[in-house]
Amino acid sequence: MSILVVGSVAYDDIITPYASRNNALGGSAVFFSLAAHHFNSTKIVAVVGDDFKPSDRRMLDAHNVDTKGLTVEPGKCFYWKGEYLSNWNDRVTHATHLNVFENFDPVIPESYTDIQYVFLGNIAPSLQSRVLDQIRQPKWVALDTMNYWISHAKSELIETLSRVDILIINDSEARLLSGETSLVEAARTIRGMGPRILCIKQGEHGAFLVVDDQIFVAPAYPLCEVVDPTGAGDAFAGGFFGYLAAGGLDDFESLKKAVIYGSVMGSFTVESFSIDRLSTLTQADIDDRYQKFVDITHFDR
Amino acid sequence: MSILVVGSVAYDDIITPYASRNNALGGSAVFFSLAAHHFNSTKIVAVVGDDFKPSDRRMLDAHNVDTKGLTVEPGKCFYWKGEYLSNWNDRVTHATHLNVFENFDPVIPESYTDIQYVFLGNIAPSLQSRVLDQIRQPKWVALDTMNYWISHAKSELIETLSRVDILIINDSEARLLSGETSLVEAARTIRGMGPRILCIKQGEHGAFLVVDDQIFVAPAYPLCEVVDPTGAGDAFAGGFFGYLAAGGLDDFESLKKAVIYGSVMGSFTVESFSIDRLSTLTQADIDDRYQKFVDITHFDR
Repeated sequence: MSILVVGSVAYDDIITPYASRNNALGGSAVFFSLAAHHFNSTKIVAVVGDDFKPSDRRMLDAHNVDTKGLTVEPGKCFYWKGEYLSNWNDRVTHATHLNVFENFDPVIPESYTDIQYVFLGNIAPSLQSRVLDQIRQPKWVALDTMNYWISHAKSELIETLSRVDILIINDSEARLLSGETSLVEAARTIRGMGPRILCIKQGEHGAFLVVDDQIFVAPAYPLCEVVDPTGAGDAFAGGFFGYLAAGGLDDFESLKKAVIYGSVMGSFTVESFSIDRLSTLTQADIDDRYQKFVDITHFDR
Repeated sequence: MSILVVGSVAYDDIITPYASRNNALGGSAVFFSLAAHHFNSTKIVAVVGDDFKPSDRRMLDAHNVDTKGLTVEPGKCFYWKGEYLSNWNDRVTHATHLNVFENFDPVIPESYTDIQYVFLGNIAPSLQSRVLDQIRQPKWVALDTMNYWISHAKSELIETLSRVDILIINDSEARLLSGETSLVEAARTIRGMGPRILCIKQGEHGAFLVVDDQIFVAPAYPLCEVVDPTGAGDAFAGGFFGYLAAGGLDDFESLKKAVIYGSVMGSFTVESFSIDRLSTLTQADIDDRYQKFVDITHFDR
């Protein structure tokens, strides 16, 4: 069962404490779909500029990502220049140029409108709603957002959330959205806004899943080296939602496994710049890391 | 098998974002022994001033904590005044008065010298070594330390670490001691200093255990409300080491369970000021939370 993902396609300049890379392919739709494609076919709806490289489109095609919904507009792709500080948790944005993204109005190709699984990447909540307006009968809608929309478009976001099944955000966003310090309390408040399922990403500290009154907590995979955290959250969402959509799964046990698959995909992403690791993964790599996750977290009852 | 714990006994003034308490019983030896006593009898070696309340000694006695090694000196108990900031992870020290602790020279009572399990709480590394000099044939020595000693007495600390089996520290201390950012790399470096077993506490983010080349990661118990984090790390160590010593256990599976018992004791500690929750716990409370830990972390392979 295919997933529709709406989000950004970008070229980023990334600075880390140890290295930097310019013009790195990024964007939420790219990271999400490259993670999800290991479980499921995905269809991207996004806008790119005329600087979008044909080789990048071919790379997506080669990964079973349908790019029919990738609109090319005159101008440049979304651009972000960011720097990660030495603790890896704090980052500074040096520049954000919306470019062709500024007038993005997602139009869902007619052949996509009966899709069942929809992932609304981090874009304006009003655009996320407009996407949903065009989908006939989605079975599951998952949404990501960020501090900017929580602060500047809260009422639109809350309206969109009422139409969403799964919210996938990070811990600081969950605290900002709910006004609660405790993640347990934050989850309670946010679930009252609509999403039945809440998955809170905690970066290097793991993830926290709340489904009705059930809780699951998972640590992150311990890495020897972090190269570039960009896209890890989107790849997490891709692994999480990709696993669920592939099997049409919605029980709590499957949702827990989805969190681990999300963590697996996020952990690979940070091991290299941009999509370098994510685009070369094999099924054996994924299976092996899932098993390592089992090994390092299992303890006797 | 009893545990000998050497550390501080203190009266603290605590300020949190929501409340404050003055003259709260604290200190590493107190939190450790009140957590460990649920698994095992403990013997404290520490110094207190003549302001140490008889009711506090009676409370320790009532919890099966042997206070024969608690020396009373003229003056006041160790005093710390600290404030937790709204994220709970950062804290500011407003005052530290060593008081009678300034000239603390731990003398191990003769009847304690054949003890097998020794926990060296967070005191000067040279004093930790002096304690070990007085123990005939310890089976397992565990040590805690802090940033101050890592920065100001590193060579003494490294010398002491060569005599230690288990190091229990937090993540920032592990990074400072090793000079590594990644906890995996930090663990490798620190294990080269002596301790075969390394348990890195990550506060609200769980714990990380490294035994030889095996790794275990555990998330923290998700709490609705934090009241006072003081002593959580010491209570973690008490649960961890108490469980191991009680059964004379040293296999990897038992060490993993010890991490969970440590997390259980730490999670109770932060639910109230000082020792309020820790001193009223029942075995059923502990068993129940251990089971909850199993429930919220277990996933299918």
